[in-house]
Amino acid sequence: MEREDDITYIHRAIELARQGESSGGAPIGCVIVLDHRIIGEGHNSVDQLHDPTAHAEIVAIRRAGATLHRSRFKGATLYSTLQPCGMCSMAAIWAGISRIVYGAERDQVHQMYFEDRHLQTIDYINDAFADDLSLTGGVLGEACAGLYYRPTDNPPGDEQANK
Amino acid sequence: MEREDDITYIHRAIELARQGESSGGAPIGCVIVLDHRIIGEGHNSVDQLHDPTAHAEIVAIRRAGATLHRSRFKGATLYSTLQPCGMCSMAAIWAGISRIVYGAERDQVHQMYFEDRHLQTIDYINDAFADDLSLTGGVLGEACAGLYYRPTDNPPGDEQANK
Repeated sequence: MEREDDITYIHRAIELARQGESSGGAPIGCVIVLDHRIIGEGHNSVDQLHDPTAHAEIVAIRRAGATLHRSRFKGATLYSTLQPCGMCSMAAIWAGISRIVYGAERDQVHQMYFEDRHLQTIDYINDAFADDLSLTGGVLGEACAGLYYRPTDNPPGDEQANK
Repeated sequence: MEREDDITYIHRAIELARQGESSGGAPIGCVIVLDHRIIGEGHNSVDQLHDPTAHAEIVAIRRAGATLHRSRFKGATLYSTLQPCGMCSMAAIWAGISRIVYGAERDQVHQMYFEDRHLQTIDYINDAFADDLSLTGGVLGEACAGLYYRPTDNPPGDEQANK
């Protein structure tokens, strides 16, 4: 897949992130693409659905499964506005996704968006049985990072889920 | 919570695992308990739902959210027949679950049940921001391990999702 496609789909993910924020959630968006077709997309819906697992990536993965009527999506690319957290990285591995592309890097945003101190997405992937999953970060990185609290911001405690 | 309760709920998780197996899925069961009440339970439903995230623990977490109408379950205990995988461990952290109790240890079953080579549940927890999550393994361990392919078994390739 070309870099131009990457930018197109990260733009779509940003759009979804803004929709998520408008509906009261965290501004994180995700698109899953297979053979140049969007097979699933979503935004963080944890609070709206009372579902702690409803991160943008998980919502999109579920929809992709519903679209394809199967639970493995070999060859698919997952686009996210933010480096996927550990839960979502592992979900992508279980789904057999072949490529993850994201915008904002972990160190561009506040630590509240991640559940662990040290492990990066690439650590999960390196440690996984799957060795056919590639990772590309920083696509529209600053545009994506602008959606989030920055590292030195002091977000309200009640917005910090992992406290 | 007493050890006696742990055995009761792991027994219930084993029952759910068997139900899951009867309906064509992997034999993994999970129960979530808060204030001596089951607030969510489930079995692995990945193939039935075409949802790669529908591990027993995630199904149970979603149901707990629906029961409580919120996305954080402080004080809750998650019971699983098998050491939760990385995705489910992280989901428990996001859900604010206070205690994880499981039956079979990772080294009692085939590696196909896990998505990574090295990291154990305790590694995820130790590395997480949450330091208020305790972990107890080996409750009815052999009974639970008996539900799964063992380390030296050679399961059919098409049953091994993370290949």
